[in-house]
Amino acid sequence: MPTTGTVRIEHDLLGDKPVPADAYWGVHTARARENFPITGATISAYPHLVTALAAVKEAAALANHELGLLPTDLTKAIVTACREIRGGALHDQFVVDAIQGGAGTSTNMNANEVIANRALEHLGHARGDYARLHPNEHVNLSQSTNDAYPTAVNVATIVSLRGLADAMRVLEESFARKADEFADVLKMGRTQLQDAVPMTVGQEFRTYAVMLGEDRARLEESAALLHEINLGATAIGTGLNAPAGYAEAACRHLREITGLPLVTAADLIEATQDCGAFVHLSGVLKRVAVKLSKTCNDLRLLSSGPRAGFNEINLPPVQAGSSIMPGKVNPVIPEVVNQVAFEVIGNDVAVTMAAEAGQLQLNAFEPLIWKSLAASISHLESACLVLAARCVDGITVNAEVTRAYVEHSIGLVTALNPTIGYEAATAIAREALTSGRGVAELVLEHGLLDADRLAALLQPEVLARPQAAAHA
Amino acid sequence: MPTTGTVRIEHDLLGDKPVPADAYWGVHTARARENFPITGATISAYPHLVTALAAVKEAAALANHELGLLPTDLTKAIVTACREIRGGALHDQFVVDAIQGGAGTSTNMNANEVIANRALEHLGHARGDYARLHPNEHVNLSQSTNDAYPTAVNVATIVSLRGLADAMRVLEESFARKADEFADVLKMGRTQLQDAVPMTVGQEFRTYAVMLGEDRARLEESAALLHEINLGATAIGTGLNAPAGYAEAACRHLREITGLPLVTAADLIEATQDCGAFVHLSGVLKRVAVKLSKTCNDLRLLSSGPRAGFNEINLPPVQAGSSIMPGKVNPVIPEVVNQVAFEVIGNDVAVTMAAEAGQLQLNAFEPLIWKSLAASISHLESACLVLAARCVDGITVNAEVTRAYVEHSIGLVTALNPTIGYEAATAIAREALTSGRGVAELVLEHGLLDADRLAALLQPEVLARPQAAAHA
Amino acid sequence: MPTTGTVRIEHDLLGDKPVPADAYWGVHTARARENFPITGATISAYPHLVTALAAVKEAAALANHELGLLPTDLTKAIVTACREIRGGALHDQFVVDAIQGGAGTSTNMNANEVIANRALEHLGHARGDYARLHPNEHVNLSQSTNDAYPTAVNVATIVSLRGLADAMRVLEESFARKADEFADVLKMGRTQLQDAVPMTVGQEFRTYAVMLGEDRARLEESAALLHEINLGATAIGTGLNAPAGYAEAACRHLREITGLPLVTAADLIEATQDCGAFVHLSGVLKRVAVKLSKTCNDLRLLSSGPRAGFNEINLPPVQAGSSIMPGKVNPVIPEVVNQVAFEVIGNDVAVTMAAEAGQLQLNAFEPLIWKSLAASISHLESACLVLAARCVDGITVNAEVTRAYVEHSIGLVTALNPTIGYEAATAIAREALTSGRGVAELVLEHGLLDADRLAALLQPEVLARPQAAAHA
Amino acid sequence: MPTTGTVRIEHDLLGDKPVPADAYWGVHTARARENFPITGATISAYPHLVTALAAVKEAAALANHELGLLPTDLTKAIVTACREIRGGALHDQFVVDAIQGGAGTSTNMNANEVIANRALEHLGHARGDYARLHPNEHVNLSQSTNDAYPTAVNVATIVSLRGLADAMRVLEESFARKADEFADVLKMGRTQLQDAVPMTVGQEFRTYAVMLGEDRARLEESAALLHEINLGATAIGTGLNAPAGYAEAACRHLREITGLPLVTAADLIEATQDCGAFVHLSGVLKRVAVKLSKTCNDLRLLSSGPRAGFNEINLPPVQAGSSIMPGKVNPVIPEVVNQVAFEVIGNDVAVTMAAEAGQLQLNAFEPLIWKSLAASISHLESACLVLAARCVDGITVNAEVTRAYVEHSIGLVTALNPTIGYEAATAIAREALTSGRGVAELVLEHGLLDADRLAALLQPEVLARPQAAAHA
Repeated sequence: MPTTGTVRIEHDLLGDKPVPADAYWGVHTARARENFPITGATISAYPHLVTALAAVKEAAALANHELGLLPTDLTKAIVTACREIRGGALHDQFVVDAIQGGAGTSTNMNANEVIANRALEHLGHARGDYARLHPNEHVNLSQSTNDAYPTAVNVATIVSLRGLADAMRVLEESFARKADEFADVLKMGRTQLQDAVPMTVGQEFRTYAVMLGEDRARLEESAALLHEINLGATAIGTGLNAPAGYAEAACRHLREITGLPLVTAADLIEATQDCGAFVHLSGVLKRVAVKLSKTCNDLRLLSSGPRAGFNEINLPPVQAGSSIMPGKVNPVIPEVVNQVAFEVIGNDVAVTMAAEAGQLQLNAFEPLIWKSLAASISHLESACLVLAARCVDGITVNAEVTRAYVEHSIGLVTALNPTIGYEAATAIAREALTSGRGVAELVLEHGLLDADRLAALLQPEVLARPQAAAHA
Repeated sequence: MPTTGTVRIEHDLLGDKPVPADAYWGVHTARARENFPITGATISAYPHLVTALAAVKEAAALANHELGLLPTDLTKAIVTACREIRGGALHDQFVVDAIQGGAGTSTNMNANEVIANRALEHLGHARGDYARLHPNEHVNLSQSTNDAYPTAVNVATIVSLRGLADAMRVLEESFARKADEFADVLKMGRTQLQDAVPMTVGQEFRTYAVMLGEDRARLEESAALLHEINLGATAIGTGLNAPAGYAEAACRHLREITGLPLVTAADLIEATQDCGAFVHLSGVLKRVAVKLSKTCNDLRLLSSGPRAGFNEINLPPVQAGSSIMPGKVNPVIPEVVNQVAFEVIGNDVAVTMAAEAGQLQLNAFEPLIWKSLAASISHLESACLVLAARCVDGITVNAEVTRAYVEHSIGLVTALNPTIGYEAATAIAREALTSGRGVAELVLEHGLLDADRLAALLQPEVLARPQAAAHA
Repeated sequence: MPTTGTVRIEHDLLGDKPVPADAYWGVHTARARENFPITGATISAYPHLVTALAAVKEAAALANHELGLLPTDLTKAIVTACREIRGGALHDQFVVDAIQGGAGTSTNMNANEVIANRALEHLGHARGDYARLHPNEHVNLSQSTNDAYPTAVNVATIVSLRGLADAMRVLEESFARKADEFADVLKMGRTQLQDAVPMTVGQEFRTYAVMLGEDRARLEESAALLHEINLGATAIGTGLNAPAGYAEAACRHLREITGLPLVTAADLIEATQDCGAFVHLSGVLKRVAVKLSKTCNDLRLLSSGPRAGFNEINLPPVQAGSSIMPGKVNPVIPEVVNQVAFEVIGNDVAVTMAAEAGQLQLNAFEPLIWKSLAASISHLESACLVLAARCVDGITVNAEVTRAYVEHSIGLVTALNPTIGYEAATAIAREALTSGRGVAELVLEHGLLDADRLAALLQPEVLARPQAAAHA
Repeated sequence: MPTTGTVRIEHDLLGDKPVPADAYWGVHTARARENFPITGATISAYPHLVTALAAVKEAAALANHELGLLPTDLTKAIVTACREIRGGALHDQFVVDAIQGGAGTSTNMNANEVIANRALEHLGHARGDYARLHPNEHVNLSQSTNDAYPTAVNVATIVSLRGLADAMRVLEESFARKADEFADVLKMGRTQLQDAVPMTVGQEFRTYAVMLGEDRARLEESAALLHEINLGATAIGTGLNAPAGYAEAACRHLREITGLPLVTAADLIEATQDCGAFVHLSGVLKRVAVKLSKTCNDLRLLSSGPRAGFNEINLPPVQAGSSIMPGKVNPVIPEVVNQVAFEVIGNDVAVTMAAEAGQLQLNAFEPLIWKSLAASISHLESACLVLAARCVDGITVNAEVTRAYVEHSIGLVTALNPTIGYEAATAIAREALTSGRGVAELVLEHGLLDADRLAALLQPEVLARPQAAAHA
């Protein structure tokens, strides 16, 4: 590894190649940078993945040392380097493109090289002096990309999902507070965009909170599947080159390092080729996106107007809405959340295709799966936080508007169904619609009920009671 | 081909197999029925495809005869059978499942067998007497599934698309009539569901007509790509076993039979494996679906209410809307169109995956591509017709509601922008919103304009004029 | 309800309408047939749904009777009709189109009418004599489409999923038997379609079994979510018109009728609008489809040839493969399974869009969700059964081919990694590739290892051992 | 616009807000940055869009000046600023997030503010001194986000597509050169992964070139649709606040500035809300992706091995393939292209959902549409270039392998079909398969043909001739 001026020369099966002298990455990374000039976004943009890679390498080094395969000094140097990376250092050295061929080999080799060179420094050697500590023979010892990389992706995904779950809880609580705040505000419920029967705004907002809570539970179930790792599988799951006891030791160390209840998969061959847990997670993220999008559609609809729309609620203004229409304020926060949802739904299709394209003992397309999932998780997290803080928290209700809708509604007649029957009620509804008159006056006029009975039946507060409470 | 009681025995490379004595289909079809018990829906459900298969077989027979490969009597018998099928006969004999393996071989063999057995009847022979007229050696002469089947699919798709284009024109004209009818009805335009600036209901409905016209043009462009066929390519496009002149003759005959301007692809190897035209068409069908869905979303939104919604238009009631809410009428026709659109968008993904899965010299998944496209085309056709006849044709407008929205709108202030400036206009808008007062009175109160000037600027009829006309 | 000749006249809010005198369905169904001429496929094609609707109506009648709302004679007549339908009778009377607007109202009304008319018969009255027993006022009592229909869909889906789970188990066992049968057959594992390291064919097939087992577990988790129902919610979840105790009683009766551990949702308003469980299920079905498709891709690849391909395994021939190429046998069973998988993945997008399009208190697009899920479930079930019976069960292995690949492979060198190091091993691999010579002879020639040590390291049987066992 | 220390204070309808004193962007951009902390990627990452925005603003300024609405000095300052941006300056000032609510308002305002502040500098005034030159009243004069932004997106997309088309041509030519190079190399064609009939490697590679050429033609047709712009439509297409002649003048200036044959849409109301051209383009990009992915699947399959695979071609090694398996070289370039294709197919779904979600007079989700299309176009461009330069250009063929496959194939028997009949040929094929013997010897042994006739029929060179040439 001669260093001439600003470069050092490294070597691989394709021959010699100069690498910047101050780079911690080496020849494999250099090749990858040339081979994958696709997105311009590098692995360094995914701190959770970089950290997880370092955790895996640290666990592997400790396991190898424990099994007598890795000398103490090298182990210490590698572990120190890994901990620095986990602490936030050297992330800028992870320079391979997020979309890359090779099933993650380039990302794994980038990690091996950075850790090796940093460890070499700790040992007092020059970068590139791989005769002393080698990216493959020491940092990657007992590993293959095909077990180290997916294990790191699993860990990174689990950690990312915590952020999302926390953000969902923040949003859930924001909706729940509004549900309490609007608990007594009557409004017309709508089905198929047509006036239906009365409810409260609180009930409407409670629904959004409940949905988020359920989705969070689903997300946690899906995340649980990721705790099964294949470290020790090496190339195809047969564990070739990994010594007896390695898988167990590496998993144990990784559990300790990450604090996650990781377990080694029962069938490492299956675990090495299977992307089922990612497809599952992507499906659940899509579920979250679908619900968030539906919720934002509702918020935009309920706040439509201010004069030619539903005008039931007011979203807090967060920016001027138009470059030409003065005073216009748009529901920009729900709109940005809708777009995140659409992106997540598209990402799910990309994940699906990448997973389906796996062949035989490996899926070569995990880098795209990671990129897609990471974007979905991170953007959903941001979307939930921004929706809570800059929209839901500031929502106010136009209670006089919502009550007026109830009072003028034809849907009130539904409450008379059990008393006057569906066919008579239908006739009243039609007459109300045609004449523009109110349901109550028509019922009285036709002598279907007397005034007291009618008033008792048509108390909107009673009608809107949730079913359980109403009859308790 | 011994016939014993109710069955006759046929033979293929797997051995003997009984076939119902009265079936026109034979052993290959019998195997396929056992192999593909997937959907329960058979090829007979696609009359355009059955007809197109018969047209291809007829064209091939005539070409083979012309080249001296097929005796006159066999040719006549085959052609007669094909014409009967094209006339609607024997469709119930196309009994293989719509989803099938084998790149359409089973559908092609089903056609070969039905035609052979019907032709045998015409020649005075028993069904199954293949020594005299053979499904493969005569009906399939100079062909492979890999050219005969895709050619039939192309022809069937072109014919199906005519039905869709006609239905789109019906709907376009329905919207255009409404655009004329509502030409003078003022309303508030909305962007992002917020009140924007005035327009007419006629302008709004004209848009739906224009969109359909544009989509029809795109559909015709995409259909044009399907006129390139690969008849004569045989197994992989090298034309093995097809004699000199066959491709040209077969294409000429098929042109005459179908009346379609078909041409032989320049590169038959490429044409045999490529599903590009189907993916393209599927993308255009998706475009049609997206626009139709958006249009139906708008119709549902504009007719929301009747009291707690926009209530700008009324969709004609076509059925009772609720089993519990008397008098409720729902926008069921737009809703069914939305669902067709969602189905088409899903089908597009299925087509995409099937096309991507093609390998080397053939795509084995054309049966699913056809099934998906056929459903999309047929359901969109039904959706357009039902939307025109049972919804758009009967739409009425609540002109007093739409005008009231304009008069009370804050969006009118946009028209004062050029005169009083964006910042002053913004202040007026905010005050109007906060106070609930009108834009006009506030402008006068603040002395920003005199009454005459203001009245001139705020004539909604002027504001709503389409830009070109406004300044003509 | 006068009956004149072959029709009787029924009445709804749109006026009078003739209905065939012998039809069990009535005016609401008649309107729906005219409104939704989309697919030509009717609800009768979904026996699980028809049966589930009858179960819901029976449970509702029993609950209403228990609460004193429905007289004993009417209850008995309704229950009898429902049991007949559950027993398979009258399914042909469910004639509304599978794609329909109205959130399932037409399906619900179809059920109400058929049950009412059959019950009227039992009571000795004429069809259409609704003054005595009314589709809405009695059969639909205490219900809305918006709780009765989704509850029926949940029940129908749960029952359908059992069929799929059983079929998956059949396929899983088929793969497991092959894994046992091929346990000792050595082969090269492949990653990224490149020769990797040795394994056994048994290990390869075990993976397919394990994947199916995992997917089945996920499917059961997802099905569990469907056991939460919203019966008693009525129109929007407030339970309007459903008496105290109804929800509990109806759920209890439905549990008894179906034998399913159903529970009433904690928040009925949320449950009425939420399609999360369907989106979730669709995502899991997609996961199943992705794995099945990957598995079938592998089977097709491993059986490629017979001479110009991998030729490792033989799929049993089930039909002639070509109309032109004699003796050609194609992997038609895996191919049909691939297509089912693509269809399921497309259906997932349709379900996603339909779910996202829900608005406020209801999702109007459940009919498409049901149609899509029902097709996915049923086609996957057929696909698994056909794949097991007509393909996997008959697979044989070409053990001499697979062993030859191992012996000539370069991938053997990987096993020398820990002994001679990654860089030396790389040099050997390159030389082997360039020269066409074997790894073993080169290692000996270069004096890297002696013959005994080499032989010990390169025992393929050892190399292929699953990691856990290898070190046990 | 007081500037205190490092900030200046700007004002909008929400009140005062500090902005960094040296920022060219202002208060609207500042709000947007807080509102949309979603992806971390800003508009500055899209130089084609930034440039196009500046072109639109320049065209608008010139048109306004021409119509007497904008003084000469302000016009000059604005035009100068726009040209600087088009020249590459100030791109780092476009700091709003790529995913944003508000239909592009924030991007448009970001452009207005940067241009205004740069123009103020040219006029010798301080940034923020909007009384002299105002982002809305001067830079945005006669415009709305709803016409300025989509017009810029159209222009940016057209320019981006040129890059893609060029890259596709590079790849097409690379494949065409290989087609020439391999024109005489015989091989077995395969259908359904089973040996079919002979062809040449040149024919196989020609197909990839032809596909790309066709796709390029489709891309150009789709790009043509984007030349229709809605500049002058203002908020909803009625052209409110845009003076007579403005649309024509602005379009003319934009034509001159960009050199593109842009035209004003015939119906500006339709053009303002319609995303059809983007959906169409996305569908065509998906078509490109599907074909590229299929091509890369083929390349990976044909190069599978080196010993346990097809081994027909060799992809040039571009990096070490494994961190554990020495000497392994993987098809990393095709793999990265596959992943780009999957991403593009996912993006198409995102575009579809965003387009479908448009409501009434506007689609608020164009920012996501742009982001998705821009990624698809740019990544496909990179993928094509990298595939050409680092893979296809260096492909070599193993001619002895491919010829051996032909010679040992059973598929040769197909050529005897016309002579000995399908049934006799089938029998020979079966015997060859069962016995492992060759087709030719069996035909002779059975006396079906004499040796000379057989040799003449089985010349592979003849068999592989493209159909047209074969019979010329």
